[in-house]
Amino acid sequence: MMQGVVQIPDELKSLEDIIASGFGAVEQIFAKQLVSDLEPVDQMCEHVERYRGKMLRPMLVLLCGAAANPKLGKLLSNGKTDHVLSKSHIVCGAVCEMVHMATLVHDDVLDEAEIRRRGKTINAMKGNETSVILGDYLIASSYELCSSLGSPIPSRIVGKASAVMCTGELLQLHNRNNFDLDEPTYFEILKRKTAALIGAACELGALGTLGFDQQSHPTVQALLGFGTNLGIAFQIQDDVLDLTGTEDSVGKSVGKDLEKGKLTYPLIHHLVNTPSKSRSIELITAISHSDQSGLPELIELVNQTESIAATQKMALSFVQGAKSNLALIPDNPGRPMLELIADAVIARSH
Amino acid sequence: MMQGVVQIPDELKSLEDIIASGFGAVEQIFAKQLVSDLEPVDQMCEHVERYRGKMLRPMLVLLCGAAANPKLGKLLSNGKTDHVLSKSHIVCGAVCEMVHMATLVHDDVLDEAEIRRRGKTINAMKGNETSVILGDYLIASSYELCSSLGSPIPSRIVGKASAVMCTGELLQLHNRNNFDLDEPTYFEILKRKTAALIGAACELGALGTLGFDQQSHPTVQALLGFGTNLGIAFQIQDDVLDLTGTEDSVGKSVGKDLEKGKLTYPLIHHLVNTPSKSRSIELITAISHSDQSGLPELIELVNQTESIAATQKMALSFVQGAKSNLALIPDNPGRPMLELIADAVIARSH
Repeated sequence: MMQGVVQIPDELKSLEDIIASGFGAVEQIFAKQLVSDLEPVDQMCEHVERYRGKMLRPMLVLLCGAAANPKLGKLLSNGKTDHVLSKSHIVCGAVCEMVHMATLVHDDVLDEAEIRRRGKTINAMKGNETSVILGDYLIASSYELCSSLGSPIPSRIVGKASAVMCTGELLQLHNRNNFDLDEPTYFEILKRKTAALIGAACELGALGTLGFDQQSHPTVQALLGFGTNLGIAFQIQDDVLDLTGTEDSVGKSVGKDLEKGKLTYPLIHHLVNTPSKSRSIELITAISHSDQSGLPELIELVNQTESIAATQKMALSFVQGAKSNLALIPDNPGRPMLELIADAVIARSH
Repeated sequence: MMQGVVQIPDELKSLEDIIASGFGAVEQIFAKQLVSDLEPVDQMCEHVERYRGKMLRPMLVLLCGAAANPKLGKLLSNGKTDHVLSKSHIVCGAVCEMVHMATLVHDDVLDEAEIRRRGKTINAMKGNETSVILGDYLIASSYELCSSLGSPIPSRIVGKASAVMCTGELLQLHNRNNFDLDEPTYFEILKRKTAALIGAACELGALGTLGFDQQSHPTVQALLGFGTNLGIAFQIQDDVLDLTGTEDSVGKSVGKDLEKGKLTYPLIHHLVNTPSKSRSIELITAISHSDQSGLPELIELVNQTESIAATQKMALSFVQGAKSNLALIPDNPGRPMLELIADAVIARSH
């Protein structure tokens, strides 16, 4: 789980087993939904399945599904592990991952990225046109799968989260090369483009346990809040890795944010706190025009304002916010497991 | 209706009024769904609303909704015109148009088109990245709207039709510059990329009247068949217009199919029937490499094999197929109205 990032203590092993077997079921449904009677479509879907990495969103659906169950402790101690998760958790997990993968495929078009999860991107292999349509195919398939659940409510949650994600991307594009981007707008972008789907994954997990008509249930609201905070922390960490990571450690092209004129928290913090703002803007502008030669000097300046440390502190505060949301859910082994995930989200180097 | 293409006889005027007032409601829901709290998103949605042209898909939802009603004749003669269409027809009409507009926005990225409905395309104005995300926003918004209907069945129909559309586009991209493209593959592409959504629009209209659990009802099946045949005829006509129209008459960039290496029916027919196939292939290859100078000679050769006439005959046979599907629906004023639409689809010059 989390590719070995999380150390699971013994008392949570049986819950870990449930999640691991849920993962297997998610993968099966995922692959089955994307099967096409057309050979070229199948080939591309197979390639794109390699994008699946941390499986953060399905994991959160499954784990929140378990954590929302007031009887989880009893079920685990009675060995009734197959009563914890249902078909709807598995379907929602696959749906969230499919929506996420669609955004990865389209993001790679936007970023003109060549490398994703150590493999060539679809756009680098087959061109932007195929990538656009393949992303559309993933989105449409996720909705088709979601509507198999018998209630329109999960479709509404997923449709809405997807629409909000798009507005976040549009807000980010609108602020490209805006080197006066302020903190509130940055967080608005993060909340929309990343936290909306991660929040929806947690909400769907809880609803799968408590019933799809329970959207106002305190546990559902608490887990939605948990996912939203966690999603913001996750994206802040992504933004740090894009600046400080290497392609080798992160597994995808790095330094893309600045190259595309996207200002992220470390730079926003830096520009507010540096005595040499005009030099920093000069370097950022050059990098956004594909001249990477100034990157080492910029990183040196960013270190002088201690902006990476400040960013990590900010990410940590969202993780703490996420954990405090958990005070309102049932006191069972799901809670410490979600806390471990929350810590792992900002400890990761990829 | 159909921008003045269809002449409505007097006895169908009251039905036309119902459809016209339904259109107004569709437009309201459409605009309301796309409203965003973000100014830049709103601006683009306003621009993209200008893409709305023939409103073929909402018209078919509304008209099939009326035509599926066994009591339509009675309702019209008793003046109970507000009992013909319900909220679900209006919502499904807006959903189908939104999905269609999303494909237009993404198609313009694929085609690198500059002009759509006599206005600049979003990609020409704002770049491909914004177009990709704006298309995604339209798709997501359409699903969110569709899931408001209380049943997951319309979401399933729309999700599935959208996924099938994408496989059609992918099949077409896979056959780019394949100058041996055969008729069966061409029709498979049309069925998927165009007819799936038009068929779904007709099916949704009928289900809105008979109940969403009535997918196997003979009227629903007949109208689904009608829409599928009509969709194929519609796309054949589009392919003729791309070859024979002018930007001025059609209202969008023309000659794009050949330029993008897409072989359509007139060319497939021509290549099978011409004695000078190698010269034609030479010209097609040059055009697909952006050398338009050979287009007049190619059109001359296409005329020698009477391939435009053969294509129009083929389109007509699908219109006749569509009309024969109507034999199985209730005998009411909806039927002749749908027949008029079917004729108009291949009579249009834009």
